[in-house]
Amino acid sequence: MSDVDTTPAATAAPATAQVGVAGLAVMGRNLARNLAHHGYAVALYNRTQTRTDDLVAQYGSEGTFVPSTSLEEFVTSLERPRRIIIMVQAGAPTDAVIDALVPLLEEGDIVVDGGNAHYEDTRRREAALREHGLHFVGAGISGGEEGALNGPSIMPGGSREAYAALGPILEDISAKYDGEPCCAYMGTDGAGHFVKMIHNGIEYADMQFISEAYDVLRAAGMAPTEIAGVFQEWNTGDLDSYLIEITSEVLAHVDAETGKPLVDVVVDAAEQKGTGRWTVQTALELGVPVNAIAESVFARSTSGHPELRAAARAALSGPTGEPVKVDMGELVDDVRDALWASKVVAYSQGLDQIRTASQAYGWDVDIAEVAKIWRAGCIIRARLLERIRSEYAAQNLVTLLAAPSVSADLATAQDGWRRVVAHAVAAGLPVPGFSAALAYYDTVRAERLPAALLQGLRDFFGAHTYRRIDREGAFHTDWSGDRGEIPMR
Amino acid sequence: MSDVDTTPAATAAPATAQVGVAGLAVMGRNLARNLAHHGYAVALYNRTQTRTDDLVAQYGSEGTFVPSTSLEEFVTSLERPRRIIIMVQAGAPTDAVIDALVPLLEEGDIVVDGGNAHYEDTRRREAALREHGLHFVGAGISGGEEGALNGPSIMPGGSREAYAALGPILEDISAKYDGEPCCAYMGTDGAGHFVKMIHNGIEYADMQFISEAYDVLRAAGMAPTEIAGVFQEWNTGDLDSYLIEITSEVLAHVDAETGKPLVDVVVDAAEQKGTGRWTVQTALELGVPVNAIAESVFARSTSGHPELRAAARAALSGPTGEPVKVDMGELVDDVRDALWASKVVAYSQGLDQIRTASQAYGWDVDIAEVAKIWRAGCIIRARLLERIRSEYAAQNLVTLLAAPSVSADLATAQDGWRRVVAHAVAAGLPVPGFSAALAYYDTVRAERLPAALLQGLRDFFGAHTYRRIDREGAFHTDWSGDRGEIPMR
Repeated sequence: MSDVDTTPAATAAPATAQVGVAGLAVMGRNLARNLAHHGYAVALYNRTQTRTDDLVAQYGSEGTFVPSTSLEEFVTSLERPRRIIIMVQAGAPTDAVIDALVPLLEEGDIVVDGGNAHYEDTRRREAALREHGLHFVGAGISGGEEGALNGPSIMPGGSREAYAALGPILEDISAKYDGEPCCAYMGTDGAGHFVKMIHNGIEYADMQFISEAYDVLRAAGMAPTEIAGVFQEWNTGDLDSYLIEITSEVLAHVDAETGKPLVDVVVDAAEQKGTGRWTVQTALELGVPVNAIAESVFARSTSGHPELRAAARAALSGPTGEPVKVDMGELVDDVRDALWASKVVAYSQGLDQIRTASQAYGWDVDIAEVAKIWRAGCIIRARLLERIRSEYAAQNLVTLLAAPSVSADLATAQDGWRRVVAHAVAAGLPVPGFSAALAYYDTVRAERLPAALLQGLRDFFGAHTYRRIDREGAFHTDWSGDRGEIPMR
Repeated sequence: MSDVDTTPAATAAPATAQVGVAGLAVMGRNLARNLAHHGYAVALYNRTQTRTDDLVAQYGSEGTFVPSTSLEEFVTSLERPRRIIIMVQAGAPTDAVIDALVPLLEEGDIVVDGGNAHYEDTRRREAALREHGLHFVGAGISGGEEGALNGPSIMPGGSREAYAALGPILEDISAKYDGEPCCAYMGTDGAGHFVKMIHNGIEYADMQFISEAYDVLRAAGMAPTEIAGVFQEWNTGDLDSYLIEITSEVLAHVDAETGKPLVDVVVDAAEQKGTGRWTVQTALELGVPVNAIAESVFARSTSGHPELRAAARAALSGPTGEPVKVDMGELVDDVRDALWASKVVAYSQGLDQIRTASQAYGWDVDIAEVAKIWRAGCIIRARLLERIRSEYAAQNLVTLLAAPSVSADLATAQDGWRRVVAHAVAAGLPVPGFSAALAYYDTVRAERLPAALLQGLRDFFGAHTYRRIDREGAFHTDWSGDRGEIPMR
């Protein structure tokens, strides 16, 4: 750390800004404006000067902006302890800004990474900055451009000391649910970015389930506009959520050029940016089963392989029986149940992953707080989250599925859920998400799983041993010998 | 590299051994014996001397062993170029042996890692040893203790030059299928260990499908011994394979202590060692959809979470309808079809992953060769593999599913497969593997996927843009404005 106070900085603004934003692409710009709207004097820095100038020119009247032409000037324009929010691309660009900032900062200053960093990077950066006497806060921010401007859900992780200085500002600019801010302290080092990663993993699942619901109804003969109406109706009940709401908007939208539903004009290859994949890779590392989220990631990936799909389409046949007859009213109700139940499973898996990581990394994440700050501002905001918050606030849950109000509604939903999967499977429609979620439901509630046979096989070919239900220890059967049982340890 | 020829080594044996094995736990010991059985003089080294002594004392008469008491002695006892097979635990122990060996070796010597290393570690080690003028060969070895002794399937990766000096020995000791060795050059650096990793991923899937087949038949009222008979019968047809064969053995086995079927006495929590998890993590990195393999990894993981299962079991209900009636004969046939079709999907996904990695890393892996060396010796050896070999030898396939003989049989199997999944779902039995494989089948053959809707949603909340089916470019709808379409690039 250099002593910047002694650095000659003739052109530098006085230290009048309360918070700074470095990186002024659309997310950074909107966050800066949001801060200004809440009365904060906001220091601005962008590597390419024109972005800074444009922001001041276009939105300067909205509040107090303190533009700077260099990182040094930016740093000196900030009150101490400095609060600097970095809004640049994850990965190398983030490291570059941090590396340039560190020598300019002083003990106790706070660097916030508001991007979609991998939580392991955040852990590494937090440890590195701590060595310099600096605070590093990895803050997940959800809500897109719109949320950044008008109130996102913010998931900050780092030291409690940093949160004391920073939290009130972030809470101020965050979305509100019944007047409560959608920002809360998540835990030390990588906790915030981990929670944001899981948010995105759940978002993948939510969107996959919605796509399957649409696909089943469409294949049964409903038009996109009719299905838009169904989603609109669902949005008044338990499924009430931002994603259900915008699904109805997208399905109702007609392409001006062709007069066709937009959904028929868009290429059916889904893209992804990485947080879904990270969620599943990390779950595998932690040993948390998140199959419904994984299927959502794989479904996107499969859709994006045109050569695989072309080869398979030319070679593979569908069901040979009579087309399956359906009662449309019953099908709509059943699909609603499948959608809701699958959604609950995905949330349950994501929260299990947070719980497990929290134990592994010593974060002490409060799941009720997580649900609380997801109730507004973020992409997965949904009525269900208030129920999750209240269930976790009331008791310590091993799994969301065991929450009394949740398991009761699952009991009601499961028959319709089963009918939808059976119907789709018979009709040749892919429902990887619905069926994975249902398989998880039936796996965790099973009295007895065939994993016992699997352990027997592992013992047979690899002498991996097995445990017995009736006493302690590991055992091996001498399969190639007299098949007697040998206690192994 | 030191010049060992000038090192005083009074007690060292003359350089008479043709190949050396370092690490003499059961796999290393059996591999050393296998080499000796084939007429090679085998240098032996183990950190703990007693293992070396025991091997010579117990099996010394089986061939020519050259024991050593130090790594230096071990190295000097080997003819040049030295061929040293390391058989120690993956990870740090492997690095420790390599680090100790390198200074003792000379240009052109060959170090083989026969453990289950992660292919990225193998790439790193290969590059490091190349710097020293040494060859490093990552060789996957499958077949367990039994295979190591009597003929495993061996998947070596590294330089072609190293394979020229080493391959003939490995081919000699490998399993044979119709007289052809189950060992072939896989490709440079990590190719061998990558192929072995995929072998294990497929093995996970095979075992999961077998477990589900058993579970469905058991729940329908068949006893383990009856199911053993079914598997025995299946082993005479298309399902003919080592794992089907030993399933029949395990199911027929009665626990001597309780008189119950062993499968009812074993704890139903499956364990895993990591290669299945690596397969899925790597597939996510490479963007290859391997959902059937992933479900197999997650199914093991779920079974091993007693607290999750206890909480879920207490809270969740099963299907409320009448018990599903089945015709047992039809069910057995349908389950066979589900098992075979699911197995084909898992192989297809694993081979797709090899193909993709081969392109990404420039390995130029020949899939027909992979199938060829999996036909005997390894855990997944199966009749299907000869068909896969011949299909890939005849043509360049994007996916195994498009191989003419395969797609024809899938067309026949699919109706039964669908009935099994629908039945299990209605009956409340978890079939994550069968249903994931079927969802993949229906996804890749779909004319149109609901991924188009998903792209619409991504464009709505994140301005991620979409492509159109009717012209090039990326487009964004101004959802919060007039909903006009904006070409983005």
